[in-house]
Amino acid sequence: MAGELKTIGKIRTPYRSVAECPSHVDPQGPPCRLVLDEAFHDGLKGLSPGQDILVLYWFENVDRDNMVQTPRRGGSKRGVFALRSPHRPNPIAASVVRVESIENGQLAVRGMDCLDGTPLLDIKPA
Amino acid sequence: MAGELKTIGKIRTPYRSVAECPSHVDPQGPPCRLVLDEAFHDGLKGLSPGQDILVLYWFENVDRDNMVQTPRRGGSKRGVFALRSPHRPNPIAASVVRVESIENGQLAVRGMDCLDGTPLLDIKPA
Repeated sequence: MAGELKTIGKIRTPYRSVAECPSHVDPQGPPCRLVLDEAFHDGLKGLSPGQDILVLYWFENVDRDNMVQTPRRGGSKRGVFALRSPHRPNPIAASVVRVESIENGQLAVRGMDCLDGTPLLDIKPA
Repeated sequence: MAGELKTIGKIRTPYRSVAECPSHVDPQGPPCRLVLDEAFHDGLKGLSPGQDILVLYWFENVDRDNMVQTPRRGGSKRGVFALRSPHRPNPIAASVVRVESIENGQLAVRGMDCLDGTPLLDIKPA
């Protein structure tokens, strides 16, 4: 598999530590921005404010070998594929958010659940 | 970004050429299987038949540098992030399907849209 990922930009959030990050995205959460590198700006053509998008991003510094885990909210141990834990073989996060505005290769959204500076991998219509 | 992907298994579908692949997943489509490598079988603990899952997989042999494209179904050119085209900077596909059964590290599902043997990257509760 020619599986090299490239960062297409960064996600700006208010969170500087994992402890501050919410466990899920929140449509009423604080303003965040998806900031695309200039090489990818043309890829936004045709996206509109009000549209829901699936955002793929990369959780860094996680344990990629832990197949059975205790859920963050408690309860019995479960397999990683039955959880949305960031600790997974391929730590790709997938969240749906609404586009509030688009300007200069930056999308305003709300309530992302990740650290400020998180690598952005992809945006698709949801 | 420590962005190395690992294949966790393969997707078995009836499709041997890209021309045969449907453009979207179809809940009433033909039987397909998500076949996990043995090292990842424990990660399925807690998943149940009837549950909807988000499947992440990898489109190989695509053009990763084409920021503006004509939609497969026609219409005016759009940015790659406004399309679900497999030709994208990080060709990670994301589809929601229902688990029909789970046995020996294999999940029976229906109507995947990819080639037989497509690398499987992740499964999350949808």
